Amino acid sequence: MSKQAPLHFTTVALLASVKVEAVSATLEKLEQYLLSEGCEVLFEQSTAELMAHNPASLPIAEFAGRVDLSIVVGGDGSMLSAARKIAASGIPMLGINRGRLGFLTDISPDELAERVAPVLRGHYTVSQRFMLDARISRNGELLNRGRAVNDVVLHPGRSVRMMEFDLYVDKQFVYSQSSDGVIVATPTGSTAYALSAGGPILFPELDAIIVVPLNPHTLSSRPITLSGSACIELQVSARNELMPLVTCDGHNDFVTQPGDVITITKHPDALLLIHPQDHNFYQICRSKLGWGGRLGRPLKEQ
Amino acid sequence: MSKQAPLHFTTVALLASVKVEAVSATLEKLEQYLLSEGCEVLFEQSTAELMAHNPASLPIAEFAGRVDLSIVVGGDGSMLSAARKIAASGIPMLGINRGRLGFLTDISPDELAERVAPVLRGHYTVSQRFMLDARISRNGELLNRGRAVNDVVLHPGRSVRMMEFDLYVDKQFVYSQSSDGVIVATPTGSTAYALSAGGPILFPELDAIIVVPLNPHTLSSRPITLSGSACIELQVSARNELMPLVTCDGHNDFVTQPGDVITITKHPDALLLIHPQDHNFYQICRSKLGWGGRLGRPLKEQ
Amino acid sequence: MSKQAPLHFTTVALLASVKVEAVSATLEKLEQYLLSEGCEVLFEQSTAELMAHNPASLPIAEFAGRVDLSIVVGGDGSMLSAARKIAASGIPMLGINRGRLGFLTDISPDELAERVAPVLRGHYTVSQRFMLDARISRNGELLNRGRAVNDVVLHPGRSVRMMEFDLYVDKQFVYSQSSDGVIVATPTGSTAYALSAGGPILFPELDAIIVVPLNPHTLSSRPITLSGSACIELQVSARNELMPLVTCDGHNDFVTQPGDVITITKHPDALLLIHPQDHNFYQICRSKLGWGGRLGRPLKEQ
Amino acid sequence: MSKQAPLHFTTVALLASVKVEAVSATLEKLEQYLLSEGCEVLFEQSTAELMAHNPASLPIAEFAGRVDLSIVVGGDGSMLSAARKIAASGIPMLGINRGRLGFLTDISPDELAERVAPVLRGHYTVSQRFMLDARISRNGELLNRGRAVNDVVLHPGRSVRMMEFDLYVDKQFVYSQSSDGVIVATPTGSTAYALSAGGPILFPELDAIIVVPLNPHTLSSRPITLSGSACIELQVSARNELMPLVTCDGHNDFVTQPGDVITITKHPDALLLIHPQDHNFYQICRSKLGWGGRLGRPLKEQ
Repeated sequence: MSKQAPLHFTTVALLASVKVEAVSATLEKLEQYLLSEGCEVLFEQSTAELMAHNPASLPIAEFAGRVDLSIVVGGDGSMLSAARKIAASGIPMLGINRGRLGFLTDISPDELAERVAPVLRGHYTVSQRFMLDARISRNGELLNRGRAVNDVVLHPGRSVRMMEFDLYVDKQFVYSQSSDGVIVATPTGSTAYALSAGGPILFPELDAIIVVPLNPHTLSSRPITLSGSACIELQVSARNELMPLVTCDGHNDFVTQPGDVITITKHPDALLLIHPQDHNFYQICRSKLGWGGRLGRPLKEQ
Repeated sequence: MSKQAPLHFTTVALLASVKVEAVSATLEKLEQYLLSEGCEVLFEQSTAELMAHNPASLPIAEFAGRVDLSIVVGGDGSMLSAARKIAASGIPMLGINRGRLGFLTDISPDELAERVAPVLRGHYTVSQRFMLDARISRNGELLNRGRAVNDVVLHPGRSVRMMEFDLYVDKQFVYSQSSDGVIVATPTGSTAYALSAGGPILFPELDAIIVVPLNPHTLSSRPITLSGSACIELQVSARNELMPLVTCDGHNDFVTQPGDVITITKHPDALLLIHPQDHNFYQICRSKLGWGGRLGRPLKEQ
Repeated sequence: MSKQAPLHFTTVALLASVKVEAVSATLEKLEQYLLSEGCEVLFEQSTAELMAHNPASLPIAEFAGRVDLSIVVGGDGSMLSAARKIAASGIPMLGINRGRLGFLTDISPDELAERVAPVLRGHYTVSQRFMLDARISRNGELLNRGRAVNDVVLHPGRSVRMMEFDLYVDKQFVYSQSSDGVIVATPTGSTAYALSAGGPILFPELDAIIVVPLNPHTLSSRPITLSGSACIELQVSARNELMPLVTCDGHNDFVTQPGDVITITKHPDALLLIHPQDHNFYQICRSKLGWGGRLGRPLKEQ
Repeated sequence: MSKQAPLHFTTVALLASVKVEAVSATLEKLEQYLLSEGCEVLFEQSTAELMAHNPASLPIAEFAGRVDLSIVVGGDGSMLSAARKIAASGIPMLGINRGRLGFLTDISPDELAERVAPVLRGHYTVSQRFMLDARISRNGELLNRGRAVNDVVLHPGRSVRMMEFDLYVDKQFVYSQSSDGVIVATPTGSTAYALSAGGPILFPELDAIIVVPLNPHTLSSRPITLSGSACIELQVSARNELMPLVTCDGHNDFVTQPGDVITITKHPDALLLIHPQDHNFYQICRSKLGWGGRLGRPLKEQ
């Protein structure tokens, strides 16, 4: 690709959330590279503090209308955290990993120039991902609200004793369950915690939500794949002696009380993930999950 | 509901595939009931042979334009068999079970009058289900073709030795696998064989297809949920010493050879399942899968 | 069985741990029945407090040499609790459930006379069960110690974030794992929490211990069945930011620190469970787990 | 180790079952090495035919009293095949793999001298493994008999339709099951097919047998770990329309009829597997199953 091709993204914001030397080093390398390409570079406010040279910075709340592309350096966790805040602005995101391939951060720091250059010039694919909106109500009143890129988890908190809850989908009663809790996940989250709990892998752009029970007491409980437009309600059983917690993407525990209702639906804000054009979801699965590589000749060559 | 309300379905075809006395008895009872309601009743040709009284009959190929509603008496298997043949005509189907609740046959012979009457007068819900179209090719040439309401299964046939195949989705290589085969299932099929093999339950109307490996040699293989518009290709590995079989809904084995490609996509013909208005998918799951019934007060009453 | 047959057990202790009217009623009924049989009846000290009539009582510590048989009224949980305290005395235990069949409490309150009478006269089977001994050490020093009839669980406590630990068996390194923790269970515990987490069922008298990972991050982790004489060591990873908890039979949480070692071995005290002679472990599995009842004629009759 | 140390094994038999150049090359290298150590080398009769130089050979039936040690070159499958024939003679076995580590063949062709030399001089560990004895009876008459190092599998044969059978353990009815069949496996077999079907890993010397259902129709069926002295009976249901097959270690299918009984018990002949002294079962699990390697400092060094 010619360096002379016009830039598709001109103002780029850099984000990171982990204070590790490797991250600062990659941020600096990235900044140098982007400047050399002619981009304007802004650091997200708290990210700027990770840097020694006091770069130009901006709070996320002011990204809209000012930033064309945000690049996150870190693991999938850093990406989730940035995504929850950026999604509302509609600014697309690109992830640079810290040396270990992630599902969301698929560019290695070693290949910055080769793989970021085409993206800057408009050669990329966009994967639109949805988030979950979780609302906790008590006696019909909204108590708390959270959003999640991966999953909303209801779990018993400190104890190993099982908790009880009722599951409703679109106002229809599904089951009462005694278990270690339940995971409600997006396709993006299907390769994260839900997978450890025995859930299926969902194609990233699928319009579906999965409900995965955590160690259910009854052996017959299985993961359920619902429509992306489903309204999922979890009612903490009045018989519980526990104060179960609700957690979004592994952060921000909300303590519930017996009778509380957690309503989970698709969030109106969508996430725009940018991938290099050679990006391949299945290749990442093979690499990260240890799926079997090709044994024979590829189909298309035959 | 008043018997005077006009009929929504006037010509009804009756189908069954199992030669069991209970089925003939239910067919006869059903015929009497439909006639008493003022319907015209036709027996599907081979179903007519199950009856002692030589009723008016019609081959399925002539249903279109002549029949308004088809009613199948039997288990889910009879329903699958009828569905594969009727789908093309666009005629909706209603299932009467043989005493044991099915996922597709949800009206019991004991409640014919109460539950069929409202349907005849237009009070029902329609669940549109898709079928799978499976094409087997050798060296680029189409050898065979089948359709399935539940699932297309590739399996090693006679042997317990594992078979090898490559999975492609939308022309992208996914993995090479050594296993007892693989199940490709519709949401309708997700509560059948795929469930025994560890697959997730899919909401019946979800536009998604699942790929469920059968006892994969690598522990990391998991069920995958794909878009309903995905093109799934299974290539029988050239290293196989076996002649794996392809089976649609548990019927019609096609023997494959190393290198054969099985292409599976959504079939253009849709299936129209008719349910009484009080039908509830989750209630059937609770009943058939042993999910936990309600422990507390229902959500809506609180 | 003749009531004149001599008593095999003459002094019987009664235990319960749940303050529920049904339990007190069953205790009273049981007391009356045992007195009518000519037994001496003693109430365990805190159990006596559940009763209105202030019966003769004895602390468990004084059971040895004084009590021939202990009978527990309640669920499996009450039995576990009593068993941890009684095992050292070598006094056999019989369980009366509260109306719902348990794995350890297999006599229903409705059949007290028919099923307890033969036991009192020596017609019973004994199932010897082992317990686990868990020791928590920090820098080589013993901090805490617990015993468990079912299981010892290491879990992350309050958070849903995964914890890390190393597993050693007989001083050999097995694996480092990132998960929601791990269950180390006896055969008795294999039908409890370990089963919910995907563990195998162990025949009750098998001399084996199972290690069952809780939602492991790597898909390849599987339950392991070890010899009953194995020495299992769990080392809380120094990289943990959490303070994982150790729990015995779901009670008594011990907070650990990074680097702590939990050593789990068979406890020298054995538990003697008494069953009526018609007791059948598999029948209880069928009843409690929903396994398929007999379809054809029994094998022995053919 | 000094080459002058006296030989513990003087006459060594070589076996292989796969006609592959790499195997013949390793056999030749091994022969040269053993001769250089002063051993007498004999080729098993059919193995001799794989060699160009027409070496001294002996049928397995004449090994007893003549051979001190047998060495098998190949994969785990070759080892299983040799083991079924050699076990009766009580001659210990050592496995050399074909370049890929196996559970039974843990010496690589590249390290022949270093790892075989100590064994020849008596520095090794012995792992005693048991085999299964499978007897098929019809109307009380013995029809066929097989032995298995890994597993005995009952499966429906050609069809994907589920088969039905009853399971009895020690003459007690366990369950009736509709499934793709069942695996009865030794601890040695627990890391083979049974693992793919969701079974637990058993410590190799454990005196236990596992029963692992294959895709059971009821979700509540789980692997069961039984005592090594258990008598397991599988009765092919009279309701089956299929002719299920019985397979030992993946070989020798026996066709059954409805009503046939397969009785599986521990075989009296034991297998003596020889391992280098640094052999470690868990290390092989980590390598072959992808378990997590060590993250922190080893326990013993702390």
